[in-house]
Amino acid sequence: MDARIQALHARLQAIVGSEQIFTGNETDRWAKDWTGQFEGRPFAVVRPGTCEEVAAVLRLANQYRIPVVPIAGNTGLNGGAYGPGSILVSVERMNRIREIRRDARVAVVEAGVIVAALDAAVEQDGLTFPLAFGAAGSAMMGGVLSTNAGGSNVLRYGNVRDLCLGLEVVLPDGRILDLMTALKKDNSGFDLRDLIIGAEGQLGIITAAIMKLHPRPAYHATALVALEDLRVAPALLNAFQDASGNAVTAYEFMSRNYVAGYEKLMPTARRFFDTAYPAVLLVELATVRNEALEELLETVLADALERGILADAVIAQSDMQRQEMWALREAAAELAFHRHPVIDTDIAVPLERIAEYMDRIPEIMRAIDPGFSDIAVAHFGDGNIHYTVWPSKNDPIVEAALRAAIDALAVDMGGTFSAEHGIGLCKLPSMARHKNVSALDMMLAIKTAFDPKGILNPGKTLPGRS
Amino acid sequence: MDARIQALHARLQAIVGSEQIFTGNETDRWAKDWTGQFEGRPFAVVRPGTCEEVAAVLRLANQYRIPVVPIAGNTGLNGGAYGPGSILVSVERMNRIREIRRDARVAVVEAGVIVAALDAAVEQDGLTFPLAFGAAGSAMMGGVLSTNAGGSNVLRYGNVRDLCLGLEVVLPDGRILDLMTALKKDNSGFDLRDLIIGAEGQLGIITAAIMKLHPRPAYHATALVALEDLRVAPALLNAFQDASGNAVTAYEFMSRNYVAGYEKLMPTARRFFDTAYPAVLLVELATVRNEALEELLETVLADALERGILADAVIAQSDMQRQEMWALREAAAELAFHRHPVIDTDIAVPLERIAEYMDRIPEIMRAIDPGFSDIAVAHFGDGNIHYTVWPSKNDPIVEAALRAAIDALAVDMGGTFSAEHGIGLCKLPSMARHKNVSALDMMLAIKTAFDPKGILNPGKTLPGRS
Repeated sequence: MDARIQALHARLQAIVGSEQIFTGNETDRWAKDWTGQFEGRPFAVVRPGTCEEVAAVLRLANQYRIPVVPIAGNTGLNGGAYGPGSILVSVERMNRIREIRRDARVAVVEAGVIVAALDAAVEQDGLTFPLAFGAAGSAMMGGVLSTNAGGSNVLRYGNVRDLCLGLEVVLPDGRILDLMTALKKDNSGFDLRDLIIGAEGQLGIITAAIMKLHPRPAYHATALVALEDLRVAPALLNAFQDASGNAVTAYEFMSRNYVAGYEKLMPTARRFFDTAYPAVLLVELATVRNEALEELLETVLADALERGILADAVIAQSDMQRQEMWALREAAAELAFHRHPVIDTDIAVPLERIAEYMDRIPEIMRAIDPGFSDIAVAHFGDGNIHYTVWPSKNDPIVEAALRAAIDALAVDMGGTFSAEHGIGLCKLPSMARHKNVSALDMMLAIKTAFDPKGILNPGKTLPGRS
Repeated sequence: MDARIQALHARLQAIVGSEQIFTGNETDRWAKDWTGQFEGRPFAVVRPGTCEEVAAVLRLANQYRIPVVPIAGNTGLNGGAYGPGSILVSVERMNRIREIRRDARVAVVEAGVIVAALDAAVEQDGLTFPLAFGAAGSAMMGGVLSTNAGGSNVLRYGNVRDLCLGLEVVLPDGRILDLMTALKKDNSGFDLRDLIIGAEGQLGIITAAIMKLHPRPAYHATALVALEDLRVAPALLNAFQDASGNAVTAYEFMSRNYVAGYEKLMPTARRFFDTAYPAVLLVELATVRNEALEELLETVLADALERGILADAVIAQSDMQRQEMWALREAAAELAFHRHPVIDTDIAVPLERIAEYMDRIPEIMRAIDPGFSDIAVAHFGDGNIHYTVWPSKNDPIVEAALRAAIDALAVDMGGTFSAEHGIGLCKLPSMARHKNVSALDMMLAIKTAFDPKGILNPGKTLPGRS
């Protein structure tokens, strides 16, 4: 260690305390992501306990011109928290739920609060924090805000941007941006809040937030629906929404290969259908008032069955069965990353074109890599498809071509190459290829305005920067 | 006219055509706002017919370094479209509804489309564009997007930001920013859309947008509710929401002075109560499904009456009566601006503190100007109060002091000085006084990044710029 590095280390230690700085092997926990795609030793991991400590770390980093990478639950899929040689600022110690305002239905949380922990904390008040995805048990507020995370309940409650009212942010130069209001309406100048949400730590480090809560549904009805043809799924969704007064909380698609893959990976898991249907949907209705949801579900399903729209359907008869259905859907990330190399995507298309996308994409894959295999799940109601491809061999060129083709078809169909996971490192080529050039220019201009020295999370999100 | 000005005029004419450029007296229509607060002769008004023409005008303005002020329906209240000596770019000719996608529930509209016209155009498809406020019959998309307009239905449908999926924007230097996607999820980089919505024409001129539509409620129930004490209003709102499964579309407060002022201004209008109560609420429930809403309304009101929460209530017995109730509420702007000088505000506080605000503010006003008079209406469910004060005399210092005190109390109570009308010129002092300094700095940095020559709508929105 040269003197400059020693001095930096000592000053970091002075900010966070000697217990809260980690180097060398001590950084293992943070040095790689669980997907196995990114591994690299940071200069140090620090765990500040307050917003002011985060600010001091950033001021120091600016002085030393050393990159800083914020890290929360480390559950991202695109390498957003990868920081070899950087100071990794972990927000995990800032994990207090500062306040729950039951009547106003808001919670004031720090960036290290785990998503599922907030939901659990408000349950007793009859409220829910409805963000729902596989990693909700370890993902933290700072991360889900920085990626504008989505998941299975977006159809009903929106994504994280829709669930956030206020933010506390440390700017790249260490200034603190206080946007901690709990107002539903606030037109006092540019919308910095929504700019920083989803900015993947490029514009500042989120240290706290005011999140919206919703009345906790007391009644659920859940079903798995088998389809011969995915083309009927949009109309079926409308039927559920119209019959229930928009009570659909989840409408999740799983491909034939997905269900087969799950059954192979989890041989003891319950099988809901004897036949391997082309498409299975998980439908869930939920309400605060008692609305006889199961009957409602049955009526819509019986009608659809009669009209030949459905192949089969199973309604969960118990909470246990409901959980088994969700286990099937929530195995997606585990299933995707149990084999390597893997291409995991989160494209979106207009929802009426999902069936067309699913029809066309395998041929395109086959043309590039005849031995490919795939699975697909989708947050159908949002048009958001997680199409996962395993190339037949470890060839970076083939892999890049497959990835590019998946994204290009989505964009061609009026969609996007990144619906909810963000850009990170994985999506930079598609960002460069498909994003409107003026939009990229303005994003770079904003980045430069916020972070002229390029300290925060460099080399990610925006192509064309070092 | 000197040669440079003649040349600029000729070049503008070459872009938009000689029929679409107006100078001198021809600009009267645009040279003042209807509130009577702002009047000033522009250099010229041009009415481009396309996004490309807007781009050419902006390129030219950059070359000549002449300010450009976008103008749509000219219904703003804070002087955002005031542009003496500027090129006023009116978007009114760009008034095509390009496409209505019924199944996807989106409309592709140009910036000159009138709010109410879009709603009328989608009615036959069983859909609604639910933005509702007094000026909806003349306000245009470009304006409501640039101010992130709100209104009476925000409680149910959100503000304009929540109703917009995609944007087409001409940047200050004439480049075109194409963000015209109709996706519910798109995490491809920074959220430029939400940054430009509500930016009051500082960052670009919006030329087209993709707007969300909602199923048109077929069933309504509307009531006026009289209260002796506004403190009960939050609990009453929750009672309506819980009983109806969140079917409340409007929950509007009117003060005693407001109702009295309306009755004086409109002597032939129907009077709903014999007594002048401290607070009157307009409550409206609306659903797509038939839910016996009137009964539901009656049940909640009867229960509240029994518990002594209400003083009186009237349920609309016909569409005519419903319209009479709405006429009372929607006279707010007319009522406010029929006397001058007037201070019109759009503060917000957490909704559980509205009653406290309304209790405290008159005393503060009285201390500054004992002869003041006031009215108040509020989008109660959003915490958004339009508190209007008429000072007893025409004294700019007293007027500024009153305005400052109204805003300061809102901010003190965890609120904002601008909930939905934006900053424009009127709110610059409060913006300078109350907005977080780092937030102002970053807004200025963004403005400079987008518009380095300061061509677009200069001197507004952001304090501290010339």
